[in-house]
Amino acid sequence: MPTFKLTIAYDGTGFVGWQRQAAGTSVQGLLEDALSELDGRHVDVTGAGRTDAGVHALGQVASVSLKRAIDRRTLMRAVNSRLPESIRIVDAADAAPSFHARFDARSKTYCYRIWNGEVMNPFERAYVWHVPSPVLDVAAMASAATLLEGRHDFAAFQAAGTDTRTTEREVFSSRVRAGSDLVQSPGDPPQFHAKAPDLITYEIAGAGFLRHMVRAIVGTLVEVGRGRRPPAWVGEVLRSRDRSGAGPTAPAPGLFLVSLEYREAIVS
Amino acid sequence: MPTFKLTIAYDGTGFVGWQRQAAGTSVQGLLEDALSELDGRHVDVTGAGRTDAGVHALGQVASVSLKRAIDRRTLMRAVNSRLPESIRIVDAADAAPSFHARFDARSKTYCYRIWNGEVMNPFERAYVWHVPSPVLDVAAMASAATLLEGRHDFAAFQAAGTDTRTTEREVFSSRVRAGSDLVQSPGDPPQFHAKAPDLITYEIAGAGFLRHMVRAIVGTLVEVGRGRRPPAWVGEVLRSRDRSGAGPTAPAPGLFLVSLEYREAIVS
Repeated sequence: MPTFKLTIAYDGTGFVGWQRQAAGTSVQGLLEDALSELDGRHVDVTGAGRTDAGVHALGQVASVSLKRAIDRRTLMRAVNSRLPESIRIVDAADAAPSFHARFDARSKTYCYRIWNGEVMNPFERAYVWHVPSPVLDVAAMASAATLLEGRHDFAAFQAAGTDTRTTEREVFSSRVRAGSDLVQSPGDPPQFHAKAPDLITYEIAGAGFLRHMVRAIVGTLVEVGRGRRPPAWVGEVLRSRDRSGAGPTAPAPGLFLVSLEYREAIVS
Repeated sequence: MPTFKLTIAYDGTGFVGWQRQAAGTSVQGLLEDALSELDGRHVDVTGAGRTDAGVHALGQVASVSLKRAIDRRTLMRAVNSRLPESIRIVDAADAAPSFHARFDARSKTYCYRIWNGEVMNPFERAYVWHVPSPVLDVAAMASAATLLEGRHDFAAFQAAGTDTRTTEREVFSSRVRAGSDLVQSPGDPPQFHAKAPDLITYEIAGAGFLRHMVRAIVGTLVEVGRGRRPPAWVGEVLRSRDRSGAGPTAPAPGLFLVSLEYREAIVS
């Protein structure tokens, strides 16, 4: 049973999310179908994070065990050729048989992108939350964001009606910045007339997240950016553990699952 | 009759191109419909360049004259609210009554984007030509590209069967580079695991272009990048004035109309 750690990028537009569901097309479902065809039997794909409908991934990670012996490059090519262009396996690594993408993850990084220009960039329309006005106070948002770092009870930033064992989570970093220097790359597409800082990026890394946690945090930070609340209010919301006191849940298309971190030993 | 110079960005995916046609949705058609509704009579929109189906624009320019007095900011808002999100007027400037977006243009800049990584970036799929292998020789392509600068007869790079008065055109610059530094912007979207130089950018500026000229040049430069031909061959193709000797026409989705330049006096 060769086991692989797959790194997957996908444009979440049009999918019901990562997780296979009774109706609609899911990323997990398409991956399981492609891998099952390849392995000649049903293959389970375990993702590190269950992204919601419309949420994107630059580096989702999944664990998968196959019956058939196959080298990782052949696997990547064979699976990619069976997937729509909106989903690509960007890396496949050999992993220990016990590797579990979700349980073994030590840290998960998300980024959330806000377009704060009056006129929307047509090339960004599926990848940002458009907040046309006012000009958001990025410094105030950045100051508020750091209040969330550390181990806290994040019940105030959890989707209503969710039932989890504990709402305590550890956040390693929580940062707001103008522009995007999250992932430096020479492969950045051309931008139309971008006037800095139309794009505002929020990046959060943590050991685990509650359902809708990142989007609820962003909705709350934007209240501060609009000048409706001072930065310290975000700390008060956190301590209240009351979802009704926080800001609205920011829309899905601005959210990207950026990367997962694992202990070296897991992946051979 | 107030006259405006409109700067327009659009994602060309799904359109039949700039120009209004008997069937299908065109950018010009949508703009004329929106402006006609606003002005209460049929309004003609004259674009600087007729982009083909699937070709994008970061800074297409159009001239338009209205009957109704309207300030440029109100015009932008009113028209954008009547357009799909894939098309945005990003600037509206007052222009002289005689302003003509096409005839008055002194220079036009296009860029063409090639994704030269084995695995395609799902976020780039509508904005590049995917050449998965071999690794293209960017230096050879760059050397070949500069041979096209100057005033030449570009008949070898014209769409077959096109009838124009003259096939002589002046190219101010013709450059290939790894990565994209064409438009620097803090608003660059995050990229997945981009390994430099997956993206190769071709930029060409000139006084005018023949039909499919940029895409025929790119198809020819890629032959050099693949190592099938030496850089000097591109000069031979140019001098031959024979379309059949050049490379294939590169696909539309990699092409962007970047900007237009005008004499200052035209725009008030």
